[in-house]
Amino acid sequence: MIIDVPADSPYGTENLPYGVFSTPGAPPRVGVRLADQVIDLAEALHDDVFAAPSLNPFLRRGAREWREARDRLTELVSGDVPDAAVHPVEQVTMHLPFEVADYVDFYASEHHATNLGRLFRPDSEPLMPNWKHLPVAYHGRAGTVISSGTPIVRPSGQRKAPDESAPGFGPSRRLDIEAELGFVVGTGSDLGVPVPVEEFASHVFGAVLVNDWSARDLQAWEYVPLGPFLGKSFATSISPWVVPLLALEGARVPTPRQDPEPLPYLREPEPWGLDVEFSVRWNGQEVSRPPYREMYWSPAQMLAHLTVNGATCRTGDLFASGTVSGPARDQRGAFIELTWGGAEPVLVNGAERTFLEDGDEITLTASAPTASGARLGFGELTNLILPART
Amino acid sequence: MIIDVPADSPYGTENLPYGVFSTPGAPPRVGVRLADQVIDLAEALHDDVFAAPSLNPFLRRGAREWREARDRLTELVSGDVPDAAVHPVEQVTMHLPFEVADYVDFYASEHHATNLGRLFRPDSEPLMPNWKHLPVAYHGRAGTVISSGTPIVRPSGQRKAPDESAPGFGPSRRLDIEAELGFVVGTGSDLGVPVPVEEFASHVFGAVLVNDWSARDLQAWEYVPLGPFLGKSFATSISPWVVPLLALEGARVPTPRQDPEPLPYLREPEPWGLDVEFSVRWNGQEVSRPPYREMYWSPAQMLAHLTVNGATCRTGDLFASGTVSGPARDQRGAFIELTWGGAEPVLVNGAERTFLEDGDEITLTASAPTASGARLGFGELTNLILPART
Repeated sequence: MIIDVPADSPYGTENLPYGVFSTPGAPPRVGVRLADQVIDLAEALHDDVFAAPSLNPFLRRGAREWREARDRLTELVSGDVPDAAVHPVEQVTMHLPFEVADYVDFYASEHHATNLGRLFRPDSEPLMPNWKHLPVAYHGRAGTVISSGTPIVRPSGQRKAPDESAPGFGPSRRLDIEAELGFVVGTGSDLGVPVPVEEFASHVFGAVLVNDWSARDLQAWEYVPLGPFLGKSFATSISPWVVPLLALEGARVPTPRQDPEPLPYLREPEPWGLDVEFSVRWNGQEVSRPPYREMYWSPAQMLAHLTVNGATCRTGDLFASGTVSGPARDQRGAFIELTWGGAEPVLVNGAERTFLEDGDEITLTASAPTASGARLGFGELTNLILPART
Repeated sequence: MIIDVPADSPYGTENLPYGVFSTPGAPPRVGVRLADQVIDLAEALHDDVFAAPSLNPFLRRGAREWREARDRLTELVSGDVPDAAVHPVEQVTMHLPFEVADYVDFYASEHHATNLGRLFRPDSEPLMPNWKHLPVAYHGRAGTVISSGTPIVRPSGQRKAPDESAPGFGPSRRLDIEAELGFVVGTGSDLGVPVPVEEFASHVFGAVLVNDWSARDLQAWEYVPLGPFLGKSFATSISPWVVPLLALEGARVPTPRQDPEPLPYLREPEPWGLDVEFSVRWNGQEVSRPPYREMYWSPAQMLAHLTVNGATCRTGDLFASGTVSGPARDQRGAFIELTWGGAEPVLVNGAERTFLEDGDEITLTASAPTASGARLGFGELTNLILPART
């Protein structure tokens, strides 16, 4: 069949994102989205690497084969796609697109880091002395990276308000989101051998939307001196579609000016900032539009930093940008910033809101320009908040 | 053959630790150590779960089957073991014993946390306010957990001395060890369902020695506010033999008194402190004997804390205790403590030493009492320091 692609579809022929889908009675396998259809790649391209329930075997093949597969796909969708390979998107179930090896979360927005510094450490300089010299990051929990649609059960844990003498235990009262862009490593590197900034695109396959769910009260109590742990580890959700870097050529922009000039291993010969525009919807209402182009550190700098000590990267590694926040209030990608620690509520469908309540639903979307000047979409990342277990 | 077991062997019939070994021309598979022999379990027990190159398939089977396998093994080694299943340990190559899912590192020694607090933050209280309320921890890099015998290439990265105005880049000048005990999760848990302290032994299979290599200069510059990252992620080595919890019944002791009393989810109905005695050898010379029985938080408390927010654990998760340090100077499990930040060198084979030099070799060993009052050994964890790549 010829797949009809409306001119304004966020899933046009310049996007072709990869995901893992299933249909009733058939196991999960790799598909590519075009308009409102999912193309079964094992069926369409006669390649068993796509019959796997995750993208990892395809990721492992490396950048030359990613490009070849994209070329074949581009040719395929310009003509007649076998009927048996085409499934309307509303008839499929989407799954986690890849098996996560290690998960790292950066902290690459100067606006976010400054806002959080003011909120968490009101008596100090908001940016730490290291912040403009290196992309600060920490390891998160790979085992709790979950798919869009998986409910978020409100986490319980220890929290202590500043005016309490001892911590209490119970459901988080300050459950929050972090709107981020995540990068998926396709081919790994060897122990002891850093990945230079120039080799970013030969290791990283593509990008997903990430919501790094955060329990701010748990985090504030636990995070010194070794960083966030239970305040984050209950869930990190990612979007079902992985947009290949090859689809993002038209979105590449320079990062904001970096001053002081970074050390040589962090200098980029070509820009890997990305002009990706986020939208955060709270129970259907847009409350923020975080601009990824404002991020101080680029993903190529993140990967170079992550491996400069000789650490390997592996197929399936996910590293995320940290919260995307711009300079304006309605560009903040976390509610702790948007509501200034809860002090300045926002109106959501007419009600004053600060942190998440049970039954809330958060949807992240994002779009970026293509090489031809159209816009491509990252799809939707949606999760519903359920009450804490008792 | 009847395997001869000397009465003082650290690998007697009460130990029976599991590892992954290979012989020339044959693939890696699971074995158990008895005296100076390795027993090929797929061959001896006729069970293909042991033909895998990692312990993970066996771990996944769960606590009842771990006990049954141990009972069968105990019976097997009391008699004639098939010759084809027995390999002298000096003729085998040992491998990483399991595939690491998530790696978490705790900070459970009060002596270590106090020493590090004094060294890293000399102007503040050494213990943070949260320390006696919860077992502080952070996620480490699972992809760089490596086996005994793998060389440690000195990492490079950013470091800034207090008297420098900007960071420089280069090989770490303060490369250090951390002697730790690590716990291996066998059966996972469901998302949203905490593992209570009473269920520790139905999820955790056994323990290994861990050396959490640390570049103190990289760590000191990068670690605020999100915790250690490149200062640790270049390598964490583990011992080849996993000692089952079932072998450690005779080593169980109460933790030191916990004051204030922990919140209910951290209270232990039965003690999971462990009387494990470490030895740290620097180029062959013992420089420290860290006592695990001094650890403030028990591993059952660590797992309960790790999952109390609803985070899952998975087969292959590794969580380590953090540096084991006792109250005496020669009981400190990291050189930054042992030499007080380099200010108080130790004599190693007649030379004054502070941090690690290229060519140094570190060996961790440990032993614990068995139920009969004998001692079992954890084997050796040995790694050699190689110069930084240039």
